[in-house]
Amino acid sequence: MHELDAGIVVIGNEILSGKTVDTNSPFLAKELREIGVTLKRVVVIPDELDIITETVRDFHRQFDIVFTSGGVGPTHDDITIEGVACALERQVICHPVLEEKLRSYLNGRPANSAYLKMAEAPEGAELIEDGAVRFPTIKVENVYVLPGIPDIFRQKFLALKSRFAADPYYLKVLYTREYESVIAGFLNETLREYPEVMLGSYPKNNDPEYRVKITFESKDKHYVDRAFQHLITLLPEGCVVRTEG
Amino acid sequence: MHELDAGIVVIGNEILSGKTVDTNSPFLAKELREIGVTLKRVVVIPDELDIITETVRDFHRQFDIVFTSGGVGPTHDDITIEGVACALERQVICHPVLEEKLRSYLNGRPANSAYLKMAEAPEGAELIEDGAVRFPTIKVENVYVLPGIPDIFRQKFLALKSRFAADPYYLKVLYTREYESVIAGFLNETLREYPEVMLGSYPKNNDPEYRVKITFESKDKHYVDRAFQHLITLLPEGCVVRTEG
Repeated sequence: MHELDAGIVVIGNEILSGKTVDTNSPFLAKELREIGVTLKRVVVIPDELDIITETVRDFHRQFDIVFTSGGVGPTHDDITIEGVACALERQVICHPVLEEKLRSYLNGRPANSAYLKMAEAPEGAELIEDGAVRFPTIKVENVYVLPGIPDIFRQKFLALKSRFAADPYYLKVLYTREYESVIAGFLNETLREYPEVMLGSYPKNNDPEYRVKITFESKDKHYVDRAFQHLITLLPEGCVVRTEG
Repeated sequence: MHELDAGIVVIGNEILSGKTVDTNSPFLAKELREIGVTLKRVVVIPDELDIITETVRDFHRQFDIVFTSGGVGPTHDDITIEGVACALERQVICHPVLEEKLRSYLNGRPANSAYLKMAEAPEGAELIEDGAVRFPTIKVENVYVLPGIPDIFRQKFLALKSRFAADPYYLKVLYTREYESVIAGFLNETLREYPEVMLGSYPKNNDPEYRVKITFESKDKHYVDRAFQHLITLLPEGCVVRTEG
């Protein structure tokens, strides 16, 4: 099977200080799942060069694909490019294609150093152009540098998405009125028979419809179906409220 | 000054696979900021014992306070207690106080092994009781083990909150209609004069009111005020839409 895993590095003091809620990683988690890419880690770190460097280097080595979110732009706290460059042991250069795009956008008005900061890229970076996106996405080795602003983050990811298709996950869901502690033994027995299924058990408080949501996942559809049926036969009659998938 | 920093370890495949959005860490980020605790890191990891162990150990060493979210309960995927115990090189024991609470809750009905799993704790753990919370919070060294279910997570944190008060942050905010690239130089000049201020610059797309939100923060109120005034005098007249704080 064609497998890909990923990690997301969210760079932003504004998230750690509770001023902004990170919506980029939940968006990306959902998108990646849909295309079969396994998200292994999300981390939120401050705008500090040594931490960005160390984290990006670590993710670069551990995961097939790394996305960074935030810290790109013209101001002092925009140091993601420098961090990615350090992590991959490259220089930061003024990229001629980015500079040309900026100057054409400025249309003759003078470019100050803040503008020119936005033309910076790690040496040897690939620029991924897409008609729908004004400014190309910077990619270095397996690291994709995305901006923090949610609508641009989304727009840019959606333009990249087709690059990452892996084999899809199959998901089946079961909702039950039983308490989690009552069904725990049946879940364990199902896992003994079907050790490869990803089995999730999520209790919900104060929901009139159900007490526990149980999820079955795998890239092998028949395996999911069999594990699902196995649990169904174990559960006390009448405790399943509904199923999905 | 009295300083405390913190890290949050969110344990949950359901978040990495995009089924659930983590609302616990945004809630905690905001709460911690209000009481002056500096949140340094948030990480979302899968329900895997070796990863929980390694991450909790790392956070335990790096930060004053560590919160875990999720992976406590009666089922196979609830392995946070075991991970925390491994991280701190302790055994998992059946805690007599927790067992007693469970048995009294069951009121004579038999306790199966899934129920008894909820009485497990790392050896030597402290139990933090609070009248408002049915089940005590497990604390081991600097690690607080909180459940993933958002309303219980909140309830439990609010019962703990008074333990963590540190010196507060002061925040001032300025909204401007100017482009970020135009004001970047003024921000840099302000930072040269006031290098200790935490200066954030957050552009917003398509907002009729403003283009960039600028935040000033420090634990020294006068320093924030002076840095703020410094920037105000540098900015072009009329570009400030409003201020806060």
